[in-house]
Amino acid sequence: MKSPGLLGVLGGMGPLATIDFLHKLLAATSATMDQDHVPVVTASIPQVPDRTAAFRGDGVSPLPAMIESGQRLIDAGASLIVVPCNTAHLWYEPLRDALAIPMIHIVDAALEDAIAVVGPCGHIGLLATDATTASGLYVNRKSPQGHALQWLLPTASEMIELVMPGISAVKSGDTKRGGALLAQAAASLGKRGATAVVLGCTEIPIVLNSMNAPLPVIDATQSLARRSVAWARSQQALNGADGAALQG
Amino acid sequence: MKSPGLLGVLGGMGPLATIDFLHKLLAATSATMDQDHVPVVTASIPQVPDRTAAFRGDGVSPLPAMIESGQRLIDAGASLIVVPCNTAHLWYEPLRDALAIPMIHIVDAALEDAIAVVGPCGHIGLLATDATTASGLYVNRKSPQGHALQWLLPTASEMIELVMPGISAVKSGDTKRGGALLAQAAASLGKRGATAVVLGCTEIPIVLNSMNAPLPVIDATQSLARRSVAWARSQQALNGADGAALQG
Repeated sequence: MKSPGLLGVLGGMGPLATIDFLHKLLAATSATMDQDHVPVVTASIPQVPDRTAAFRGDGVSPLPAMIESGQRLIDAGASLIVVPCNTAHLWYEPLRDALAIPMIHIVDAALEDAIAVVGPCGHIGLLATDATTASGLYVNRKSPQGHALQWLLPTASEMIELVMPGISAVKSGDTKRGGALLAQAAASLGKRGATAVVLGCTEIPIVLNSMNAPLPVIDATQSLARRSVAWARSQQALNGADGAALQG
Repeated sequence: MKSPGLLGVLGGMGPLATIDFLHKLLAATSATMDQDHVPVVTASIPQVPDRTAAFRGDGVSPLPAMIESGQRLIDAGASLIVVPCNTAHLWYEPLRDALAIPMIHIVDAALEDAIAVVGPCGHIGLLATDATTASGLYVNRKSPQGHALQWLLPTASEMIELVMPGISAVKSGDTKRGGALLAQAAASLGKRGATAVVLGCTEIPIVLNSMNAPLPVIDATQSLARRSVAWARSQQALNGADGAALQG
């Protein structure tokens, strides 16, 4: 029952970040009634092995579980898949190859928004997991237009004392502690010259946003949500009336 | 790829209520890390014809679209389906017959919680859509243990001036106005003798809760979420280790 315009969300990494992404899909949609919103199927199956542990070589690969969730979305009819978890994008290429379905890369979405805020040669901070940061997922990614963004990363001790405990606190539901730790990490990046900071882990924007962060933020979750809605709208335009292709 | 313990959420009615339900699933789960949470697939395909209009005879039936969404969840591997929309339960029996999969009825869940709050013969208010109220979905439902709940409903003018505009306001994102209108309707029920009120439309607990309502509330969304988590846990217990049955 593959349906043009049906967005698949491969979530559960973690489940609260998935909900935050679904919220941002709604917020990115101009709607006055239920039927105006983008059709979406979501797999939030959090029994995916820890991504950071796997990257460090301390755990099993999350790839088979991610492929299984992706296949469920394809079985449900999704025709594009997005993954609201930055670290999971370390396995983006093998996942896309296994699923053989169009996907949007969260870093591409975030980079485009970052360049719009700080310019193509701007000084930009990154708050992300140890694995996302150390793998170069952000700093090595080229944007289609090319860019020379100047990255500022947390120090090793900031990663250990602020960023990773902050992300863990959000995952365990202690958003207050998580927010305080991550705001402190963002402030450090600002002191070292960042004019804005990419929130490059989907747990972070749950507690840090443009209202409470000490400097402007680029929320990668929001970047991905906006592009997902744009994709769904373009599919609707291609396939005629609102969601008609999804009606039985 | 049917998987024991994989919960299916037939949502999109409306999409914000679906997200509220997913939040309440997390809140009903004791968890310290991602992997502790209940595995869930969600179809939030809001292009379902309006339920209240269909009940009134002013619109097409939502049943085919609901069956289609339910089939997507089954295709994705769900082994139990819940529908976080009260009004949609007017089509519960034909939906369950068409899908041939176990389901939990939201009214059964809410009644059990209501009886725990007001007692089996207590005076209880109902805030729900015109269709849910007028169809007798709540007032006619028998609980397994039997009960003699004394129902108090909004008057026709309260339905037209407070309840329905309140629900519409939430659906269009105006939660402030929605909350004010619905709190006023709840207060009226309290004045007429209700000792608590069932929030029997999934849009209502988005804006009204035990913190801000003028009398105790039974949140049907939360009732359904708690029973969904209990079901998932019982399946895990039946099938051995945490989510093992869901690993590829």
